[in-house]
Amino acid sequence: MTPELTLYDLAGADPALRFSPHCWKTHMALAHKGLTARTVPWRFTEKDAIAFSGQKLVPVLVHEQHVVSDSWQIACYLEDTFAERPSLFGGDTGRALSLFINGWSDTTLVPVLARLLLPEIHGLIRDEDKDYFRTTREKRFGRLEDLPAGYADQIAALRAALLPLRQMLARQPFLAGAQPAYADYAVFGMFMWARCTSTLELLAEDDPVHAWRERLLDAHGGLARNAPMAA
Amino acid sequence: MTPELTLYDLAGADPALRFSPHCWKTHMALAHKGLTARTVPWRFTEKDAIAFSGQKLVPVLVHEQHVVSDSWQIACYLEDTFAERPSLFGGDTGRALSLFINGWSDTTLVPVLARLLLPEIHGLIRDEDKDYFRTTREKRFGRLEDLPAGYADQIAALRAALLPLRQMLARQPFLAGAQPAYADYAVFGMFMWARCTSTLELLAEDDPVHAWRERLLDAHGGLARNAPMAA
Repeated sequence: MTPELTLYDLAGADPALRFSPHCWKTHMALAHKGLTARTVPWRFTEKDAIAFSGQKLVPVLVHEQHVVSDSWQIACYLEDTFAERPSLFGGDTGRALSLFINGWSDTTLVPVLARLLLPEIHGLIRDEDKDYFRTTREKRFGRLEDLPAGYADQIAALRAALLPLRQMLARQPFLAGAQPAYADYAVFGMFMWARCTSTLELLAEDDPVHAWRERLLDAHGGLARNAPMAA
Repeated sequence: MTPELTLYDLAGADPALRFSPHCWKTHMALAHKGLTARTVPWRFTEKDAIAFSGQKLVPVLVHEQHVVSDSWQIACYLEDTFAERPSLFGGDTGRALSLFINGWSDTTLVPVLARLLLPEIHGLIRDEDKDYFRTTREKRFGRLEDLPAGYADQIAALRAALLPLRQMLARQPFLAGAQPAYADYAVFGMFMWARCTSTLELLAEDDPVHAWRERLLDAHGGLARNAPMAA
């Protein structure tokens, strides 16, 4: 029996454009489990549409009577509910360590990438969402129009921040070892955020992180590579 | 049968003072496995004493006819050789993810801590090792006498770098989950480097990382808490 799953997924003005890094973690986790969700495009100001989840952010996953928000909680829900399918964590210790790597990705990569991507994203969302987007993002990262002047510095900072990933990829093809798992998706989601919204090249071609990203673009039937990108 | 193990372990002028972060990873890994090694105090310039290992750094572990250097390789050796004892990694995925966390610790924490600890360490080693120590360290971190002026900045940088660990500790007591494992030791080794050589307080008392460090000081019968520190 195929499970019926619904995923509320951040979209641009073009409903096909799905660019949230956290929603991408969930897309990859679903694919890893061999699951497909019906997705509902959701925009930043549509708080009412997900009020049933008791909070205001996507991803939100609905499965039967279960409503799960927060990409980490969704990953844990998928792992526990579909335990007979390929594991996202490889056991309890793997789950605990994946939480650290998820947090490393969020705390280290999000702020750098936000400074590289927010101006472009502002151009990709619906007009009615732009005030909300600008206000919330500028509070944290400064005026959108000022960010492009810092792109070269941010790209350098991103590449420096990726050092532990780069070093590790000299020894194994994925964070999780021979095959990708949730720890990979927790980092790769950040690169999908960039890929779907921006033409900036973030990685040098000879960077092992670049090759790792290519492998994940191809994973699960090319799910990520085939995702719509901004024109 | 108790395995016979010998560990070449970095020591200060006082042979009881053992302060290498990487050797501390190994001390904790041995204790986790319920193993005890005879330790041989080793100083920076005693390259000849470990030439049999084919390289110039400690830790070096000797077990029967096996010689293993590099703290990560030693952890893997202990895990595979003493597989029936408590696991350091919790499976293949956990091992792969632990390698990332070990790399995160080395690349993120070592440079910051080096700038905080090297001047004190210079005072703790044998006179005949001081030239070597100064030359190799100053190449990377600048003049030892200039470093103390930057301590406040480095402590702030250290606390910022620990953000992903701090966030995660809100959800679980150890990196590896309910109980510590190698990922914890890979980070904790850094704090033992500091504890054994310096009186600088690196963490705020209400920092969850502080409480985590306390738990690891008490782990395995207080092995770390009871280790000799510089006077």
